[in-house]
Amino acid sequence: MSRLDSFIRRLEAQRACLDHVVGLIAGRDGPALEIGLGNGRTYDHLRARLGDRALYAFDRELKAHPDCVPPAEFLILGDFRDGFRLASVRIGRPAVLAHCDFGSGDRAATAALAAWLGPALKPLLAPGAIVLSDQALDGFRPLPLPAGVAEGRYFLYRHGDGG
Amino acid sequence: MSRLDSFIRRLEAQRACLDHVVGLIAGRDGPALEIGLGNGRTYDHLRARLGDRALYAFDRELKAHPDCVPPAEFLILGDFRDGFRLASVRIGRPAVLAHCDFGSGDRAATAALAAWLGPALKPLLAPGAIVLSDQALDGFRPLPLPAGVAEGRYFLYRHGDGG
Repeated sequence: MSRLDSFIRRLEAQRACLDHVVGLIAGRDGPALEIGLGNGRTYDHLRARLGDRALYAFDRELKAHPDCVPPAEFLILGDFRDGFRLASVRIGRPAVLAHCDFGSGDRAATAALAAWLGPALKPLLAPGAIVLSDQALDGFRPLPLPAGVAEGRYFLYRHGDGG
Repeated sequence: MSRLDSFIRRLEAQRACLDHVVGLIAGRDGPALEIGLGNGRTYDHLRARLGDRALYAFDRELKAHPDCVPPAEFLILGDFRDGFRLASVRIGRPAVLAHCDFGSGDRAATAALAAWLGPALKPLLAPGAIVLSDQALDGFRPLPLPAGVAEGRYFLYRHGDGG
């Protein structure tokens, strides 16, 4: 499999997971979080699938394509630690979905962020909230991935006992 | 269609075109050229599909993933103008395939490079060589795209009257 093949497979898996989690939260009220806006492709996909649901995006700095920049009130820039503190005040109600996409070429930094993110995310989530992540996270109950997505390519969890 | 959908569709079209041109040059002897190595994903795909055929890669600077860096004798770095002059000496025989992937966010620079590239490429090509490009190029005879690839998403040509 060439790197082009494997890149396409990774994006298709990502899309399958996003479509799957949108289905999992159908009928549950509450905002969604995009942790790691990046170029904005998955934000744009979630935005299209989530309809009227509030979708908050976090990133260290704005690198998104101009078509994928969230409205100012839904965009939380800066260090995630500061952003999460701000978010708990600004959003004002627990989220039912978090999509975390923050892996980078720097493996040590990615691992450190993943270790921090699991516990830090919990205060922002409703019981039973769905967490989809490109990195393994601690402290959540694993859920099966959608059909066709290989184990370890993406990570899917439910928070707490609700839902 | 979200930007994630459209990105996946673009990569699938790119792969379909690459697989198609590999078929078009089957049985013809001569090297292949990758104009714009970039991250090396399409280089890796062509390399896997082309077997023993020599594959030369050009780019302004090396940004490829470590797994996709061509051997030094097949890598021509620097301005394309200098690179093409060097290539005509170093390669020593006409190419039967050129894949050009050089579009960037800078539309003016991309258009200028496309205008220069068509005529500049010809001296490196065998009669009847196949040219696949992410940008429209002048001076070649258009060929139909493979099934499923939308018009204008990629550009496919044959050089001269041979083949």
